[in-house]
Amino acid sequence: MVQAIYPGSFDPVTMGHLDIIRRSADVFERVYVAVAINVSKRPLFTVEQRVEMLEHVTREYANVEIVTFQGLLIEAAKKYQAKVIVKGLRAISDFEYEFQMALMNKKLGHETETLFMTTSSKYSFLSSSLVKEVALLGGCIKDLVPDEVHARIIERIRTDLL
Amino acid sequence: MVQAIYPGSFDPVTMGHLDIIRRSADVFERVYVAVAINVSKRPLFTVEQRVEMLEHVTREYANVEIVTFQGLLIEAAKKYQAKVIVKGLRAISDFEYEFQMALMNKKLGHETETLFMTTSSKYSFLSSSLVKEVALLGGCIKDLVPDEVHARIIERIRTDLL
Amino acid sequence: MVQAIYPGSFDPVTMGHLDIIRRSADVFERVYVAVAINVSKRPLFTVEQRVEMLEHVTREYANVEIVTFQGLLIEAAKKYQAKVIVKGLRAISDFEYEFQMALMNKKLGHETETLFMTTSSKYSFLSSSLVKEVALLGGCIKDLVPDEVHARIIERIRTDLL
Amino acid sequence: MVQAIYPGSFDPVTMGHLDIIRRSADVFERVYVAVAINVSKRPLFTVEQRVEMLEHVTREYANVEIVTFQGLLIEAAKKYQAKVIVKGLRAISDFEYEFQMALMNKKLGHETETLFMTTSSKYSFLSSSLVKEVALLGGCIKDLVPDEVHARIIERIRTDLL
Amino acid sequence: MVQAIYPGSFDPVTMGHLDIIRRSADVFERVYVAVAINVSKRPLFTVEQRVEMLEHVTREYANVEIVTFQGLLIEAAKKYQAKVIVKGLRAISDFEYEFQMALMNKKLGHETETLFMTTSSKYSFLSSSLVKEVALLGGCIKDLVPDEVHARIIERIRTDLL
Amino acid sequence: MVQAIYPGSFDPVTMGHLDIIRRSADVFERVYVAVAINVSKRPLFTVEQRVEMLEHVTREYANVEIVTFQGLLIEAAKKYQAKVIVKGLRAISDFEYEFQMALMNKKLGHETETLFMTTSSKYSFLSSSLVKEVALLGGCIKDLVPDEVHARIIERIRTDLL
Repeated sequence: MVQAIYPGSFDPVTMGHLDIIRRSADVFERVYVAVAINVSKRPLFTVEQRVEMLEHVTREYANVEIVTFQGLLIEAAKKYQAKVIVKGLRAISDFEYEFQMALMNKKLGHETETLFMTTSSKYSFLSSSLVKEVALLGGCIKDLVPDEVHARIIERIRTDLL
Repeated sequence: MVQAIYPGSFDPVTMGHLDIIRRSADVFERVYVAVAINVSKRPLFTVEQRVEMLEHVTREYANVEIVTFQGLLIEAAKKYQAKVIVKGLRAISDFEYEFQMALMNKKLGHETETLFMTTSSKYSFLSSSLVKEVALLGGCIKDLVPDEVHARIIERIRTDLL
Repeated sequence: MVQAIYPGSFDPVTMGHLDIIRRSADVFERVYVAVAINVSKRPLFTVEQRVEMLEHVTREYANVEIVTFQGLLIEAAKKYQAKVIVKGLRAISDFEYEFQMALMNKKLGHETETLFMTTSSKYSFLSSSLVKEVALLGGCIKDLVPDEVHARIIERIRTDLL
Repeated sequence: MVQAIYPGSFDPVTMGHLDIIRRSADVFERVYVAVAINVSKRPLFTVEQRVEMLEHVTREYANVEIVTFQGLLIEAAKKYQAKVIVKGLRAISDFEYEFQMALMNKKLGHETETLFMTTSSKYSFLSSSLVKEVALLGGCIKDLVPDEVHARIIERIRTDLL
Repeated sequence: MVQAIYPGSFDPVTMGHLDIIRRSADVFERVYVAVAINVSKRPLFTVEQRVEMLEHVTREYANVEIVTFQGLLIEAAKKYQAKVIVKGLRAISDFEYEFQMALMNKKLGHETETLFMTTSSKYSFLSSSLVKEVALLGGCIKDLVPDEVHARIIERIRTDLL
Repeated sequence: MVQAIYPGSFDPVTMGHLDIIRRSADVFERVYVAVAINVSKRPLFTVEQRVEMLEHVTREYANVEIVTFQGLLIEAAKKYQAKVIVKGLRAISDFEYEFQMALMNKKLGHETETLFMTTSSKYSFLSSSLVKEVALLGGCIKDLVPDEVHARIIERIRTDLL
């Protein structure tokens, strides 16, 4: 039985992420969605908020668990006994960076395999940062993020402006 | 009759930009060159200076108008009744980013079309930031920017050093 | 008023082509869909059949005309007084080839501009040759080509097998 | 328990293929290495020879089975109850083509997932056709193919020259 | 003192090739321009004609010598004591293929280094096959090939048509 | 006799850099490894420390000299009478950026040639910043940097944490 880990910032989770989570949950016995705790970046949501939103939107998938990690991804993979690291690929630039990371992770923990999934074509232009940028400029982000996340982003932006 | 909008930072306008403006003006009834007002970046020239330089170097094109915009490009396109967004492509990395933006803009305002033009091969290595970097390091940027802009950059850099 | 030419083999026309035709017809005064007469390739449909199918699926667009051309695209563009060559871009490999062709066409007829449109993301994996390959192997190609074209492909393949 | 299918021409199997097979066998319950029967290509080895070589070099992997398939890959995947299609990625051009195929296969059989593995960096320059080309020109292909395959290629080329 | 080999089909030599030859001759002590004898392709010019044209257009470079080779490039490099293989890069697709070849050549003859030169931007859209295609379709290829080569292509095409 | 300059930040030198230095030293009469003095970046090591490490790991190459430079690379190339700028290429994104820089440098100093070397495939995933990131997160970077550099990084990180 193979367990997988799907790492990311998820600030916030988008429909593209959710698509990868759903499909991974269909292939692997258990999928750990691992929120990276990155002290240097300035996120829109706290790690706790991101975990909470992820738990909410994945509540129907019994074999998906939301966790957090700090440090090397490969150590998180070992901790959760995840043989597989899942990554979504949207574009060439993703590919290059992910390829480099996969080779590095292979060197650091050669028992772990990185497997790539193509992002569904309807989400190929989506990223958390683009969603945030559009929302901040007042554009409509419905359909790009789960409904609950949509409400949270709008609320978060309103708070910032006060 | 189709109107187009050509957005950018134009900090400052280069010969590559001017090439796209000239060719767009040849194809579309009216071309709005739209200077993005981006509060977070630290530009070399103010928005007013950038508009002024653009107006100067495009003075011979009767159907080109320099405007500014804040927020979503798609809203600026609607405001100026521009059915077409014009973008110049130099390289693969441009292409990926622009492709993503075009799909996002299509979603946000599906009446608007993004059309891409290939940058003239002799300007394929040009960008505003590279021009600024070369100028700051004392390199010759003649032929890379219009003459008037050249003088302004030199003056601007000299002021900074005082 | 700007006229455009949209060249291709269209063997057969796909939903991806139709998407570009519809959007071009929305931007330009008149769009010439130009079927290339290429003696060396072995097409599935004759040029006449391809023209007929294109006329059928574009019958609702008043400003679209189906034509054929032999020789240089740039000469066809001149003949039809098309200032603009329209091309659809799906992927990087398209981009590179098309970029090269656009620069060459610019050299051969510098009055003509090549403008690129992004293919709608839901058709980003589509090509005439892939459609034919899938159909020949017995796969379902509904949604990938217009209905009338679908019937023609099935009929054409059945005839071949007899 | 998830079964996977790893399709290809394997004409002949290289060290790069073997690397993907070994790593897939480590992740999935059962791996079907599926040799494509492609009537139009002119292979160096017959399908039977390719199957035999694959069986030989994978004999130590208990959960790997060599099969052949004709027609759509997605039908072969269904036949062998393979939820996952495994593909190796070496380079950008691989990526683009495979991405397109993955999206098409998703459309044709949406229960099946294509998962990509990065080729080990030391085999990133390897392909069956390059191996054949080098061997035909008299170059040394040891380390590029398994030893048994090496002997078979040399023998095959010698026969051709007589 | 370092000698270099610049391999290719040169069917025919273009201004892009000549640019690389001139710049290589400026860097290396001696440059062997090596015409590949490839029996399977159907060239426009014979190997002898290609050598003759190359000799003509490089007659002013004292340290350039035109040679032919069959089989592995690495063997030709050894024969001419060329420590360096020179390649021109125009675009990404060139890059990928050449990268693969460079790694393979490194494996086959690890004393030899492949060094890449960027093609001058004004020739970035040029290739022998594109030149031939344009010429065959009646397009103007002046400026794309040396004058002498231009006359030869026109003559060659006229002969074919008789 | 041709002299070359190999510029970079070298913060710190990796096995990938050392591979390019060794191979360049084999081709060119003299290789100047030029450490860029970049005031705006926040390096891990001072320029002096980087020079010292480079001198240590290249001590066996008689024709390699470590220098520093500020301002335009092309001016450093002129100062050291380096006809050739050497660059290592790992991936497409490198290629695009380096291509642009090579064309710009060609414009700024047309006597100088940029020559690209492919990074050895076993170092294709390596970069100074990735090495630092892995080291900071506690991952093993042995084999990725020379032994002496390894010790220095560990020491440097320990100091930071105190």
